[in-house]
Amino acid sequence: MPQSPYEALMAEVRQIDLLGGTASLLSWDQETMMPPAGVAYRSGQSALLSRLRHERFTSPRIGELLSTCEADDALTADALSPPAVNLRELRRDYDRALKLPAELVAEFSRATSIARHVWAEARKADDYAAFKPHLKTLIDLLNRKAECYGWPEDGERWDALAEGFEPGLTARGVEAVFDPLRPRLVALIQRIGEGGRQPEDALNRVRVPIDAQMRFVRAVAERLGFDFSRGRLDVSAHPFCGGTHRDDVRMTTRFGQDNLGDALGSTMHETGHGIYNQSVPAEHVGEPFGRAVGLSIHESQSRLWENFVGRRRSFWRWCAPLLGEHFGDAFTGVGPDEAWVSMNRVEPGLIRVEADETTYNLHIMIRFELERRLLGGDLSVDDLPAAWNAAYARDLGIEVPNDADGCMQDVHWSIGAMGYFPTYTMGNLYAAQFFEAAQSALGDVDAMFARGEFGPLRQWLTERIYSQGRRYLSEDLCRQVTGGGLSSEPLLNHLEARLGEDYGL
Amino acid sequence: MPQSPYEALMAEVRQIDLLGGTASLLSWDQETMMPPAGVAYRSGQSALLSRLRHERFTSPRIGELLSTCEADDALTADALSPPAVNLRELRRDYDRALKLPAELVAEFSRATSIARHVWAEARKADDYAAFKPHLKTLIDLLNRKAECYGWPEDGERWDALAEGFEPGLTARGVEAVFDPLRPRLVALIQRIGEGGRQPEDALNRVRVPIDAQMRFVRAVAERLGFDFSRGRLDVSAHPFCGGTHRDDVRMTTRFGQDNLGDALGSTMHETGHGIYNQSVPAEHVGEPFGRAVGLSIHESQSRLWENFVGRRRSFWRWCAPLLGEHFGDAFTGVGPDEAWVSMNRVEPGLIRVEADETTYNLHIMIRFELERRLLGGDLSVDDLPAAWNAAYARDLGIEVPNDADGCMQDVHWSIGAMGYFPTYTMGNLYAAQFFEAAQSALGDVDAMFARGEFGPLRQWLTERIYSQGRRYLSEDLCRQVTGGGLSSEPLLNHLEARLGEDYGL
Repeated sequence: MPQSPYEALMAEVRQIDLLGGTASLLSWDQETMMPPAGVAYRSGQSALLSRLRHERFTSPRIGELLSTCEADDALTADALSPPAVNLRELRRDYDRALKLPAELVAEFSRATSIARHVWAEARKADDYAAFKPHLKTLIDLLNRKAECYGWPEDGERWDALAEGFEPGLTARGVEAVFDPLRPRLVALIQRIGEGGRQPEDALNRVRVPIDAQMRFVRAVAERLGFDFSRGRLDVSAHPFCGGTHRDDVRMTTRFGQDNLGDALGSTMHETGHGIYNQSVPAEHVGEPFGRAVGLSIHESQSRLWENFVGRRRSFWRWCAPLLGEHFGDAFTGVGPDEAWVSMNRVEPGLIRVEADETTYNLHIMIRFELERRLLGGDLSVDDLPAAWNAAYARDLGIEVPNDADGCMQDVHWSIGAMGYFPTYTMGNLYAAQFFEAAQSALGDVDAMFARGEFGPLRQWLTERIYSQGRRYLSEDLCRQVTGGGLSSEPLLNHLEARLGEDYGL
Repeated sequence: MPQSPYEALMAEVRQIDLLGGTASLLSWDQETMMPPAGVAYRSGQSALLSRLRHERFTSPRIGELLSTCEADDALTADALSPPAVNLRELRRDYDRALKLPAELVAEFSRATSIARHVWAEARKADDYAAFKPHLKTLIDLLNRKAECYGWPEDGERWDALAEGFEPGLTARGVEAVFDPLRPRLVALIQRIGEGGRQPEDALNRVRVPIDAQMRFVRAVAERLGFDFSRGRLDVSAHPFCGGTHRDDVRMTTRFGQDNLGDALGSTMHETGHGIYNQSVPAEHVGEPFGRAVGLSIHESQSRLWENFVGRRRSFWRWCAPLLGEHFGDAFTGVGPDEAWVSMNRVEPGLIRVEADETTYNLHIMIRFELERRLLGGDLSVDDLPAAWNAAYARDLGIEVPNDADGCMQDVHWSIGAMGYFPTYTMGNLYAAQFFEAAQSALGDVDAMFARGEFGPLRQWLTERIYSQGRRYLSEDLCRQVTGGGLSSEPLLNHLEARLGEDYGL
């Protein structure tokens, strides 16, 4: 039987996905397994894969098949059917990809691969001067990319890049969410500071062996529902969730000698991403429909499992007894309450990935502000450290002692990811909304969590979000699941309630 | 400055090498890291990479550049110069690759990826029936490949496949080496059997933790000269040495609870491959000149480090005291002599990779005989187990109790590697010749080994073999290094001397 144009298009798209999965594996390997001397060759491999994928996706054949399929009413009549969704997503990505010359794609890939390596070394040595020229190169390349993509008259160049992470995201749109959020967060943090009370950090005070920590966080990830026959958990400097497809999901985490609470938070975060990736529709692997929605929704799931489950009092009724199983008497005296307050300390700090769920959002707002100015040429890479430090003094009231823990702390800019950070806070907002909806539907989730039962929540999320793949765009999905659009109220309600309990506000 | 045709050819060849390095990483990952559910997607990735590489290498542009360069006397005047060697090697591989249709390449890659997985499961379950149809498919594909390649009138189809592993290797040539070797090996093994004396196997009797074993074998590999900043050592069911290029070499080994001697032998074997791969000329990465010579020479280096160093009495003067450092008092009473005899027991057994260096060669001869008949259609996959078992009874005097430890024990056939096995025994022969030459040049190597000094041997080998890349073909290299061609005398002398000492023959 001859292939229909739609079948031919999907076959080609699945081949391109194999290249994407390969690039993703190269990247996972670079962060977790590759010996340090491999970096130069690896950047060549990544650049080549990236170019091959781009060339293949932007070939005229894809454009022709796409147009033929779009003209077929049987495929597009139901806008939410898998074929219609595949065509919608491919069209947007195809038009966008055509705007970028193959040489720029390869140059960008090569530059980010090298910059990521330089960044890791420069951060270790607190040597911003070493990283600076690479950051400059990346910003120039990002501006070239933005100009290729273009942006609407009432928008700005940041929008052109953000669109790649979250369709429809604009700097103005982000402002509209951030502006009302910021003063209430700042006020909340001030009230806590004025209270002068700080709970014990019982989970991050005790030295325990790394291999025991790994067994513990694996056990929790497995109980939440991560399927280790279809995925892995390894260690990397900056935790992430990658892999090739739903049946080969690679999460990473990181450990300190005396940072069990942080290691668990980081693992539960990636487990949220991991469970989502493992639960997209199996029959659409390699197609757009078989992928997760944009970054904000993805982040909502990592935040939901990390913060709304992992920092919840009832979760620790189940989890605290596990400490004895894994660490002998190292955590004697740390019961559910002690563990819970340790997981919910609010304290302005230097490092985003170590921040509590309240101050976290201010870290994001600072990055959004600075990357917008870097791209617009209003801030030079020479002045970045000073601008960074001033923003931390202003919003979080803390002094930044060095660039390693200041403007060089994140991997994102070193891999050319600007336009990305705000999706983290959008994720927090969506997470709060989804969790409210889940509670309404499931009833007493606390009773379930206290028994270590996470299946009902996972199934509810799988049905409504994970198994839907890319059927809906972010805002539409939010409406489908919660009955309303994006709002900051659920997050603020959640934080105020939790901190009211914890800090007696 | 415009690129010369030679520069253009090398640039293209290096890009193709990046694809090859990526395929190699996919394969390493599949054996060491990939979750089991990833196999189907991975076989798609491997097939695609293999097809892309083949398409790119067989493009008319490569042929044109190659012809242009070959006509340039400045490039070819010195037949041993890097450009002339690159052109010689590319021409042979190009002509060979052109004979294979892209579809067959992809089909073969897909079939081997699946068969390798089925083999691993079938071997666990001792279920030859499950593996059989896949082996049949592979033999059909191998015969199609052999017919595409063709073979000389006085040759046979096996030769067409062997050429891909070792240029110039033929079944007749193998026979000419194996035929005189076999009776002397059989006689030697019989004399040992008749002696009725068997030394203690002190290294493979004690249960020691796997993580301590890993630290021990790593320490030895590092001391021999493997550079862990440019490579890794992991665990896989079947040990191998892969990776992407000289600065990212991936070795694997395997452990049992009470098989320290085997784990060390296996690690030293792969370390020989690894040191070779790390020492090819850096300025020719990605070019044929920058690669190791064919499989026999590669194997000679794994055998040299495993057998001629690792099973030598003087090596154990240095190594035996390490046992206490790594395993506490688990090996109390195991001194250099006890360790040495444990590493040199001769005992006909079922499993090739566990075989001593004497009986090993008979395992190879059996495989050579059977794969030659399988390819020629003289033996069907239905009759393979019976033929296997009969050969083991005849040559090694042992009964094969099941197929898992019989005809399914090796990974090779499951990945379609027929024409490969004899290179192992050729490696043993070359190793003996090279080691004799090294001893003549370096003087008292035993005094060095007893002090844990392996640098002089490694440097001697690096200068004469590793750093030469592919300058010489195997036989020519042997003449350069030893002053003579391939011979079985040095190996037989070595075995008779060692076993004379060990068994008092």
